[in-house]
Amino acid sequence: MIRVLIIGNGNVASHLYARLRAIPSIHVMQINSRHIKDLPSADVNILAVSDDAISEVSSKFESGFVVHTSGAMHMNDLKNNGNKGVFYMLQSFTKEKEVDFSNVPFCLEAEQDEDLQVLKQLAKHMEGKIYFLDSDQRKALHVAAVFANNFSNYMFTIADSICEQNNIPFDILYPLIQETSAKVQTMPPSKAQTGPAIRRDQKTIKNHLNLLDDKQREIYTLITQSIQDGT
Amino acid sequence: MIRVLIIGNGNVASHLYARLRAIPSIHVMQINSRHIKDLPSADVNILAVSDDAISEVSSKFESGFVVHTSGAMHMNDLKNNGNKGVFYMLQSFTKEKEVDFSNVPFCLEAEQDEDLQVLKQLAKHMEGKIYFLDSDQRKALHVAAVFANNFSNYMFTIADSICEQNNIPFDILYPLIQETSAKVQTMPPSKAQTGPAIRRDQKTIKNHLNLLDDKQREIYTLITQSIQDGT
Repeated sequence: MIRVLIIGNGNVASHLYARLRAIPSIHVMQINSRHIKDLPSADVNILAVSDDAISEVSSKFESGFVVHTSGAMHMNDLKNNGNKGVFYMLQSFTKEKEVDFSNVPFCLEAEQDEDLQVLKQLAKHMEGKIYFLDSDQRKALHVAAVFANNFSNYMFTIADSICEQNNIPFDILYPLIQETSAKVQTMPPSKAQTGPAIRRDQKTIKNHLNLLDDKQREIYTLITQSIQDGT
Repeated sequence: MIRVLIIGNGNVASHLYARLRAIPSIHVMQINSRHIKDLPSADVNILAVSDDAISEVSSKFESGFVVHTSGAMHMNDLKNNGNKGVFYMLQSFTKEKEVDFSNVPFCLEAEQDEDLQVLKQLAKHMEGKIYFLDSDQRKALHVAAVFANNFSNYMFTIADSICEQNNIPFDILYPLIQETSAKVQTMPPSKAQTGPAIRRDQKTIKNHLNLLDDKQREIYTLITQSIQDGT
């Protein structure tokens, strides 16, 4: 039996609580971060709170193993007296949508090996894929995820906007978007690069620039240049 | 029976020929673009040649219905004497990989309605999704596809490069990439935007910039600014 205490009531806390509650060999409780007193004893205390609250909330723990769930924060941003660790799930959690934890990468870190084993057991129970990353690696992963997720989504937003301006239904691009993202699993994205930039097709590039507004043009120009320079 | 003549021997020509040959009610032939003489009569002549060759190759047709397969070229870039049209398939074709045409958007255009019906029949036989776009729309779609495909792939390349520099296996990002691309089918990408830029989380943005090289930093800064300004 692993005893888990989840502190927080946001999306991560709620999804995690719902998932862990369904596992017989795990005993899980959830409390609001403002009500930290007379805490029940737990094998791991999971702070699922905002980055800014991690130091303050963790400082209220006099003992025990405390982890945060942030990709951007260092393990040592925890200020509890006992052992520290990180239990970071690399996935975007939204309130309404159920999470398939078997598809979630768990990034684990702990000061003590026995604590790391507890985190590993938790992740295993949720059938997730397990990665051991230190705080520097996790921070690098966090910025990589901004490119892979936030910025690629913004490229879709610009495409959507161009379609809308020209009365083209955006769904026409769905198959291409699916293929682009599926392809990264079969070859490195640097090998999958296609289009006028990598072909150095200056005629098409010039035609494209004429179709764009100032802001789109600036982004098109910078990324095209960057593709041509090589990463 | 629709009689189709494919001119060209690149990826598009080969995949198209293989697919059409399997359809009983279509009679298809394929010739090299350098051997245009004594052409067999066809209901549609499909020029699957490079953009630069379209004008010259099409000029050799004294009569008949001629279409090109380019997203970037205008219908009037065809220089044949007879009727003109466009049969553009919005998908990246690679030599080795079989194409699932039922997943391909067909963008059709023709001067004459009866010609358009021929193109529509062809696309229907291949079980593709059919769109009617004029040359200006198709050119806009072509640049939209550069953002949705080429540039999002480049965002994956930068993410891959950051992972590699930090000894993080890139496969850790697969689920997030899949989720990002799947989400465009359920909501507009502008509504799906997450991350430090849209949250205006300047502290995280500053931390991220410190982890990047000059080139990555320039792209990160421009896209973050652009997200914050709104599209």
